[in-house]
Amino acid sequence: MTTDTDLRHLVETKIESECVFDGKLLHVRRDVVRLPDGTTATREYIVHPGAVLIVAVRADRRLVVERQFRYPLDRVMLEFPAGKRDPGENALISARRELIEEAGYEATTWTPLGRVHTVVSYSTEAIDIFLAEGLSHVGAKLDEGEFLEIDAMSTDEMLAALDRGDITDVKTVAALLMYTRRRGGSSSLAA
Amino acid sequence: MTTDTDLRHLVETKIESECVFDGKLLHVRRDVVRLPDGTTATREYIVHPGAVLIVAVRADRRLVVERQFRYPLDRVMLEFPAGKRDPGENALISARRELIEEAGYEATTWTPLGRVHTVVSYSTEAIDIFLAEGLSHVGAKLDEGEFLEIDAMSTDEMLAALDRGDITDVKTVAALLMYTRRRGGSSSLAA
Repeated sequence: MTTDTDLRHLVETKIESECVFDGKLLHVRRDVVRLPDGTTATREYIVHPGAVLIVAVRADRRLVVERQFRYPLDRVMLEFPAGKRDPGENALISARRELIEEAGYEATTWTPLGRVHTVVSYSTEAIDIFLAEGLSHVGAKLDEGEFLEIDAMSTDEMLAALDRGDITDVKTVAALLMYTRRRGGSSSLAA
Repeated sequence: MTTDTDLRHLVETKIESECVFDGKLLHVRRDVVRLPDGTTATREYIVHPGAVLIVAVRADRRLVVERQFRYPLDRVMLEFPAGKRDPGENALISARRELIEEAGYEATTWTPLGRVHTVVSYSTEAIDIFLAEGLSHVGAKLDEGEFLEIDAMSTDEMLAALDRGDITDVKTVAALLMYTRRRGGSSSLAA
């Protein structure tokens, strides 16, 4: 592996930055940057407060999943519970809040599994992934206008669904690997 | 698993749609939609032509990776080769093109590994993931203004880097699981 100090010849630096779209959900900036060879280029990207995803393990070892209609894709997606952080909100607080609001569960034990970046080319979004264990069902409190179904699947069922192409949400696929690395949930992840 | 026909009560339908930002890279639409309960809501999302990612396996079984500065995150990321499809371009053609342009490799054998959706809440982007084998090095042809480093890592080195938090690019994490499921690249993915 190359160390960070060896990578300075790849770095782009900001010259100018402006907000070009300030919507209800999306906030887009356009920056002019200096490239490593001294020329300039334009970068457009979403400014995002970050999100959380929860791998919530029930007493029977099944994982809590949601089915939710995703308008940009015009289809119902199978996903781990996840949600956007409120501005400045601590990631663990967001995770506790989202697991109750969306899935209706509280958890006694929370373990960070890592962080992923969802769209490295056009968003600042990072997702903090948590393992939640010791679940108790307290009932969901969905936001107004939020509609979803809660279910639970074993790790092997989720891997089989991935193989069939029935799980395509990338954060859910990544979290499934990170969970299995940590917990050894399957004797072998090879199909 | 619930069948698709059972999920109609989750569906949102388009009422109006307008382009609200038409940039060089990003194209943002804002739609008004009817929710399952008959009320209306706003959806803002990026319209994206789709992308491809290539898991390129060398004769020594090491996987081709790139280090590239990602401006929205202000850091160098470790990723599998990937790139945006040209509008209307067949995904396999895009994958062949990107593997040559970015990494400098041609491949004799191409196998689809599946598809992921990167940001289900605010982009139409799908990434088609390919396995490329039978590599021959022909030299990279980077786009103007594109700067990156090519390296190669074993599956186990990539999994260890994931455990350390050194791989956070979500498409790369997901593709690593999909590759390992297909190829049985590691006797056990559990750490």
